[in-house]
Amino acid sequence: MSLIVQKFGGSSVANAERIFNVADIITGTYKQGNDVVVVVSAQGDTTDDLIAKAQEINENPSKREMDMLLTAGEQMSASLLAMAIEKLGFPVVSLLGWQAGFLTSSAYGSARIKRVVPDRIQKELDKKNIVIVTGFQGVNRYNDMTTLGRGGSDTSAVAIAAVMKADLCQIYTDVDGVYTADPRKVPNAKKLDVISYNEMLELATLGAQVLNNRSVEMAKKYNIELEVLSSLTRKRGTIVKEANKMEKMLISGVAKDEDVARISIIGVPDRPGLAFKIFSKLSGKNINVDIILQSVGRNGTKDISFTVGRSNLQDALDILTPYVEVLGASGIVHDETVAKVSIVGAGMESHPGVAADMFEALFESNINIRMISTSEIKISVLIDQADADRAVTAIHNKFFSDVAM
Amino acid sequence: MSLIVQKFGGSSVANAERIFNVADIITGTYKQGNDVVVVVSAQGDTTDDLIAKAQEINENPSKREMDMLLTAGEQMSASLLAMAIEKLGFPVVSLLGWQAGFLTSSAYGSARIKRVVPDRIQKELDKKNIVIVTGFQGVNRYNDMTTLGRGGSDTSAVAIAAVMKADLCQIYTDVDGVYTADPRKVPNAKKLDVISYNEMLELATLGAQVLNNRSVEMAKKYNIELEVLSSLTRKRGTIVKEANKMEKMLISGVAKDEDVARISIIGVPDRPGLAFKIFSKLSGKNINVDIILQSVGRNGTKDISFTVGRSNLQDALDILTPYVEVLGASGIVHDETVAKVSIVGAGMESHPGVAADMFEALFESNINIRMISTSEIKISVLIDQADADRAVTAIHNKFFSDVAM
Repeated sequence: MSLIVQKFGGSSVANAERIFNVADIITGTYKQGNDVVVVVSAQGDTTDDLIAKAQEINENPSKREMDMLLTAGEQMSASLLAMAIEKLGFPVVSLLGWQAGFLTSSAYGSARIKRVVPDRIQKELDKKNIVIVTGFQGVNRYNDMTTLGRGGSDTSAVAIAAVMKADLCQIYTDVDGVYTADPRKVPNAKKLDVISYNEMLELATLGAQVLNNRSVEMAKKYNIELEVLSSLTRKRGTIVKEANKMEKMLISGVAKDEDVARISIIGVPDRPGLAFKIFSKLSGKNINVDIILQSVGRNGTKDISFTVGRSNLQDALDILTPYVEVLGASGIVHDETVAKVSIVGAGMESHPGVAADMFEALFESNINIRMISTSEIKISVLIDQADADRAVTAIHNKFFSDVAM
Repeated sequence: MSLIVQKFGGSSVANAERIFNVADIITGTYKQGNDVVVVVSAQGDTTDDLIAKAQEINENPSKREMDMLLTAGEQMSASLLAMAIEKLGFPVVSLLGWQAGFLTSSAYGSARIKRVVPDRIQKELDKKNIVIVTGFQGVNRYNDMTTLGRGGSDTSAVAIAAVMKADLCQIYTDVDGVYTADPRKVPNAKKLDVISYNEMLELATLGAQVLNNRSVEMAKKYNIELEVLSSLTRKRGTIVKEANKMEKMLISGVAKDEDVARISIIGVPDRPGLAFKIFSKLSGKNINVDIILQSVGRNGTKDISFTVGRSNLQDALDILTPYVEVLGASGIVHDETVAKVSIVGAGMESHPGVAADMFEALFESNINIRMISTSEIKISVLIDQADADRAVTAIHNKFFSDVAM
């Protein structure tokens, strides 16, 4: 007998028919003799609908009240899913985040799980109940409802799997696994059977929105085997696990991120500490900076360029524009017509030719590289947004042209 | 400074505009220097919509999961109302039933409040917050969500008022007070300024669905002054309080109840104990019997007639029909084309002519009385349903014809 955690996203429970589809998957797993803990998101567009309802009343509500409102979403989906499982004749109980022992920080809207005390879940499993837990939510030290932020249901599932030492954590979503590139854009993209935590992390960061980043980090930390799969196709998905358990793939995927804007501060005096001051100002406002490029100094000045998420662009400009004069720089410019394309692969650490192959693919497609950033298992380039889809296809063909479909 | 509890029903918060109307009432009370605790129901048709959603999945879900689903309704209305109050610039916090300390029995769907521990409410009041509490819900000893049953939000409000010794408990609804008769049916029905708990209880039982019965019982027990009023008209409503504080009115109202069916067991042998056996069988199945009439014995047999709610009719017949033979009775008949019309008034105790006046009004309208039941402050008659509205008007005119409009 195994303990299996299954997480179902909002599209998997969007209506009564899909709820019964999910109930069938869950009871199938239970019938095989497994203990099953299910984490469920709010149905379909519920969260967006609730946000719209709040906006109609107050365009800037407190995050505490917003969390109070939004946590009702999973409460409804969890109880409806439990009713479907009851209808199929299986013992089931639904639990809210606080009932399931999800203790979080107090950062309403983006709380972090501090502890999961799974006593109640275990008690229900001991009674042979299927346990449905509301994802995305918990309770803070004041006994107030909190949400983990978007994608937080993945994290809820992995947290339960970690604390209860589950044998497998299945993340059911609307795609049937992790692909070497976006299959809607690259027709010969291939589904991966397996990928390492680190590769998955880089892909998640890079905009392949299959798995929430925090959930992968937590799975890595507690060595929980994940499976990403579709609730609709019922095929095997992609397993995410420790790299040393698997043959390292040279390249596991190509990803595109269009949520990126470039900022350049021009003519910064070539003195130590100025770059630090710029980036500490941004991090002080919780603005993440990604690729950073500093030009070689010329005439005693240099240019500092970097990328931020587009939603942070205005904040970053507001912070830095008045600061240009203080720095003694000559100006600040920005560009939103850019995109980031990246390749990820645990095998590239030991294969130095990977970057050259990537750049060759872009050169052959006449695509100009504007910035480059590399990590041990990732190479990212900043290019014109208009070239992004062509770039993904060209790079994918370079590395995966020999892949049997 | 006073502590005022205000309860708003679903129609009072049905949409954004009404939510702001309610927010205005609440903040107006707060601005006058009062501590304000608000109890709110789910918006408009939310509860019915959730029930329909559940029915789509499982026509017979467990009551536990049903309560889990339904309690999301007030969670949403409470947080939205809090956001509206935030928008108006006032300090506010919304609390769920369990956060507000509502400990209930485990009877999902119709739980009873066992205790209210208002520590958190008091803490928020001490911080000068307006406190919004979800009505209709609590938590049982297993830490599971429970609902108090329909109309339970009134009870929630009175329970808070009782335990916190509030100075006033205002029940905002879609009518502007308690009337001497249904104002939609009797044009010259008059709004009462004040009514006693007992009169209100009789009226509530008799189908004047202004206030939930349990809430009036609780208000009486803890001597909490209630005010029934409309959130839309903003006029003074009807005060419900202890009779000895007020001049006793001869008649406070005329009420009609069409949820009534008559059952007669014919030819019951005239032996002691048979009536007891009949009614103990019914009470064993939780069927409430109202008016009871036993004919004078003749030829050693008698007829026993009584009324039950229509939803209980089939159950009552199922129980009693096989029992007719055991009793040695000759048959059982029933009639659903009846209605009960009642007058209520604390003053009738000392005015014996009231019943005669009521019967005279019915006689003048040529309405046949089929059964009669009286209590110290109530006289009820069972008549043909087709005559019910005429009967209410005739009786109302008899007692209130001299009332200045």
